[in-house]
Amino acid sequence: MELIDFTKKQDTEEIGYIIEAFRKGELLDKSPVRVRGAIHRIRRMSGFAFVLIRSARIVFQCVWDEKTSKVNLDDFSPEECVVIEGILVAEERSRLGFDIRISTMVRVSGKAAELPVEISNDKKIEALNLNTLLDHRVLTLRNPKVRAVMRIADGVMFAFRDFLRKEGFVEFVPPKIVCEGAEGGADMFGVDYFGQKAYLNQSPQMYKQIMVGVFTKVYTVGPVFRAEKYSTNRHINEFQGLDLEMGFIESFYDLIRLEARMMNHMMNVLNEEYAQELELLFGGDHRPAGSGTAANGNTSAQTTDEKETGKKGRYLPEITKAPIIRFTEAKKLFADAHPGRQGEQALAEPDFSPEEEKWIGEYFRKEYDSPLVFVTHYPSVKRPFYTKDDPEDPEYTLSFDCLLNGLEITTGGQRIHDYGEQVEKMRRRGMKIDDFGDYLTMHKYGMPPHGGMGLGMERIVENLLHLPTIKQAAAFPRDRDRLRP
Amino acid sequence: MELIDFTKKQDTEEIGYIIEAFRKGELLDKSPVRVRGAIHRIRRMSGFAFVLIRSARIVFQCVWDEKTSKVNLDDFSPEECVVIEGILVAEERSRLGFDIRISTMVRVSGKAAELPVEISNDKKIEALNLNTLLDHRVLTLRNPKVRAVMRIADGVMFAFRDFLRKEGFVEFVPPKIVCEGAEGGADMFGVDYFGQKAYLNQSPQMYKQIMVGVFTKVYTVGPVFRAEKYSTNRHINEFQGLDLEMGFIESFYDLIRLEARMMNHMMNVLNEEYAQELELLFGGDHRPAGSGTAANGNTSAQTTDEKETGKKGRYLPEITKAPIIRFTEAKKLFADAHPGRQGEQALAEPDFSPEEEKWIGEYFRKEYDSPLVFVTHYPSVKRPFYTKDDPEDPEYTLSFDCLLNGLEITTGGQRIHDYGEQVEKMRRRGMKIDDFGDYLTMHKYGMPPHGGMGLGMERIVENLLHLPTIKQAAAFPRDRDRLRP
Repeated sequence: MELIDFTKKQDTEEIGYIIEAFRKGELLDKSPVRVRGAIHRIRRMSGFAFVLIRSARIVFQCVWDEKTSKVNLDDFSPEECVVIEGILVAEERSRLGFDIRISTMVRVSGKAAELPVEISNDKKIEALNLNTLLDHRVLTLRNPKVRAVMRIADGVMFAFRDFLRKEGFVEFVPPKIVCEGAEGGADMFGVDYFGQKAYLNQSPQMYKQIMVGVFTKVYTVGPVFRAEKYSTNRHINEFQGLDLEMGFIESFYDLIRLEARMMNHMMNVLNEEYAQELELLFGGDHRPAGSGTAANGNTSAQTTDEKETGKKGRYLPEITKAPIIRFTEAKKLFADAHPGRQGEQALAEPDFSPEEEKWIGEYFRKEYDSPLVFVTHYPSVKRPFYTKDDPEDPEYTLSFDCLLNGLEITTGGQRIHDYGEQVEKMRRRGMKIDDFGDYLTMHKYGMPPHGGMGLGMERIVENLLHLPTIKQAAAFPRDRDRLRP
Repeated sequence: MELIDFTKKQDTEEIGYIIEAFRKGELLDKSPVRVRGAIHRIRRMSGFAFVLIRSARIVFQCVWDEKTSKVNLDDFSPEECVVIEGILVAEERSRLGFDIRISTMVRVSGKAAELPVEISNDKKIEALNLNTLLDHRVLTLRNPKVRAVMRIADGVMFAFRDFLRKEGFVEFVPPKIVCEGAEGGADMFGVDYFGQKAYLNQSPQMYKQIMVGVFTKVYTVGPVFRAEKYSTNRHINEFQGLDLEMGFIESFYDLIRLEARMMNHMMNVLNEEYAQELELLFGGDHRPAGSGTAANGNTSAQTTDEKETGKKGRYLPEITKAPIIRFTEAKKLFADAHPGRQGEQALAEPDFSPEEEKWIGEYFRKEYDSPLVFVTHYPSVKRPFYTKDDPEDPEYTLSFDCLLNGLEITTGGQRIHDYGEQVEKMRRRGMKIDDFGDYLTMHKYGMPPHGGMGLGMERIVENLLHLPTIKQAAAFPRDRDRLRP
C-alpha cells in the first residue's frame, strides 16, 4: 500500500511545452530536449533528412544528420511512434522559431507495416473515393486535415454545452432504448430487448419535454438513430443530436434569439480556440502537406496546448444579425426569382426542396451578408404532432428552421402544452392516444408554454467546413451499407 | 423579412433575478414583481395561505391574503404553472429575506388533474416502492430531492469534461451501432439494421483506442448498452459511460494519477456549484418538504441562477490523497480480517465479491480517511483481451479499479499496443483474429503505449449520494423489465 502523489507532472516531452518554454526564454538555443509523436514523413536530402513528427495537434520538423545523429534512419517507417532526444537550435526560417536536431530516436510503438494509404499526403487522401476513405478510417483519421474536421466537431459540441450551461440550462440523459417513438414510430431501428420488441429512439423529444417540467431549461447531447433508407450527402443513420428545450417562453421567437446567440458563441469559440484547424482547412497556403507545420492560433482553453504565433485567423463569420422570414414569403421570393414552371412547382409544395434551401441561403448571404436565416411558420402538415399551430392561421405552425449556408441545421418550435389541445391534434391525425400514455402524462399535470430545437452536430460541421458530404463530418459514419469500422 | 434583435433580455420573472436584485438593493421593500413557476403546494391558514412555488432550482414562498389578493385560490391546483404579480415585502424570518404578497396569479399551463402521487411530500415520495417511483417518473422527477439527484448528474458530466478539456483531451463520437463487439460480442443487444444483423455497442473501447492514434488524448461521454440479465442495485442495461484514453503513458500509474486529480476536480465542482442540491440531499434540516426553500450555495457558473445566502456547505470530501494497493494484497487484508472459511474462499477467487469491495472501501476510509482506493494488478483471466499483462508476472495485468466508498466506479489499465503481442494474446484466448480486422489495423500501423478507463456516471451519482439503487441515479433507467417511460 502506498499513497498516490497528486502533483501534476509537467509533461516536458510534449511539443506544446517546448514551444511555450522556448518562447518564454526558458529553453535556450542549443538546449537538449526530448519530444515525442508519430513519424509523419521522412524527407531524405543529401547527408541529412527532415523527419516530420505528428503530435496531437501539429506536425513539426526534426532534422536528422548522418554525421551527428546516432540513429539509423532505415530502421524507421511512417506511423511509428518515437521519442526523440535532440538539440533545440534557434532557426528563423522555421515556423516554430527553432529546429530539433536529432541525437537519438527511440521507437515506442511496434514496427509499422507498409501503409495502404499515404497518410501524410493530403492530395492523395483528398483524391480517395469516399468508400476507400471510410474503409481505411482507422488510418485516414490520422491525416492532419481529416483530423482537423474531428477537432472542429469537438469545438461545436463544447460551444453548444458551454453556452447553454451559462444560460442556466441543465444537462440530462434520455434513454436510447425505448418501447415506442415520441414521433410515432416510423423509421426506427428495432432492438431485441431480452426477447421483447424495442426500438432505438429517433429523437429525445418526449424526454426533453418531460424534463422541462423538472428543470425548465434542459439540453442533451447524444446519438440519434434514424432508419431512413435514403442516401444523400446530408443524411447519416446515426448522428450526434444537440437538443434543447425551454419552458415559460413568451413565443418561439425566444428560441430563435437563443439560437442566434448560441451560433454566435459557437463561431467565436471556433475562431478563437480552433484557429489553427480552420487555417489548415481554409488557409490559402498550399504547400505540400507535411512540408511544414500547421497554423497559428490562440488556444488558451487548453493548458498544455500546442500553439504557434502568427496572425489570428477569423475564418468563420461573426453572427450579429440574422434575417427571419416566413415560410410562405420565402417560397414567394424563390418563385419570383424563378418565373414559370419551377416557381409554380415550388409554391405548390408544402416544404422546401434542397435547391430552394440552397437558393434561400445564397439570397440572404448576398442581400444581407448573413450566413444564417431563420424560416418560420412551416405548414402544419409537415410538422410533428406536438408542434403548436398558429392560432392566427392553424394551417401553419409556430415553428422554425435555421438554415446555415443554405443547409437546414435546426428544426424547432413551440410545442403544445395543453392536454386537451394535444389530444385533439393527435385525434385529428388519427393517432392512437393510448400509445402515448407517458407522453401525455406531463400535459395532464401542468406544463408551461415551452418549445425547443434539435440540431445535428455533423450537419453543422459539414456546413461550416463546406464538406462534400456529411459522412466526412462523422468519425465513424453509419449509412445504409456501412457498419464499420 | 426582419432582422433578429440579438440583445439578451434580462429575464425579470425568474426568481433568481429577483433574489439577486433584492440583495443588490435594486428591488426595495414594497416593489412590485412578477415571478413564475409551478405550484408546489398550497397551505391554507386562517384568512391567508402560503403558495409554494417551484422554480427551476428552488421552492419559494408567496403569500395569498383573502383581503388583498385578487385571486380565487380554489381555481388552482398543484403542478399548474403560474405567473404571479405581487409585492415584495422584506421579511427577516423568510430565508430569502422577503415574501412575495400575491396581487394576481395567472395560470399559463392547462388545468392539472388530480395527482396520482404527492410530488411535494418528500416522505411519501421516499416511501414509494421503486416500481411506483419509476412508473410515475414523469411526475416524481419533479420532486425537489429527486430532481436534485439529476442535477448532481449534470455536475458529474460537466466536471468530467471540464477537467479533461483543460488537460488537452479531445472529445470524439463513437458509433453506437456496430457489427461486432470490441470485447468479443457477449451481452450485446441485437439491432435489425436494414435487414442486416448489428449490435448496440457495449463499450467504446475500440474507438477510443483508434482515436489515441489520432489525438493522443481523447474522451467520450455517451450511452453504453449491456444485455446483462442480472438485476442488482448497481446494474442498469443502459448507462452513461464516461470514457477516456491516453497515449504515450509511461505506465498505468499515469492514469491513476489523472483519475485522482479528476475525482478531486469533480468533488470541488459539486461542492462549489451544487451546494444547494447537496444540502437538500444531505442537510440535517428535516422540516417538512416544501415548507420553505432549498439551501444556500455558490452557483457562480450559472448567470441567472437562483442562489441564496448562508453558509457554504462542503458535503463531499476533498480528495488530496488516495491509497493504492495490489489486488493480491487487498485479498490478503480481507482474508486476515476474516479468518476461517470466508477468508479462504476470498483468496481462492480471482475477483472481489461485492462484500469484499465494500469491506476494502471501509477499511481505507477508516484507516486512511480516504473515500477512494485504487486496486491494481488484477488477474489476467478476469480482464479483457486488450489488457496488457504485467511483464514481471503475466498472470496479473497492468490494470486497476477505482473504488469509491466501497463501490467500483472505474475499470482501467494499460492496453497492448504491439500488434504481435495483441494477436498472440487473442490466440491464447481462442479468439478468431479475422473478426477483429479494424481493431488490429491500428496496432499494425504504430500505436504509442497507451491506456484508459471507463467510468459509469450513474454509479458515481449512486455512490456519492448513497442511493439505495443505481436506478435512482438515472432519470429514465432501463432494466430487464423496464422500458418506460
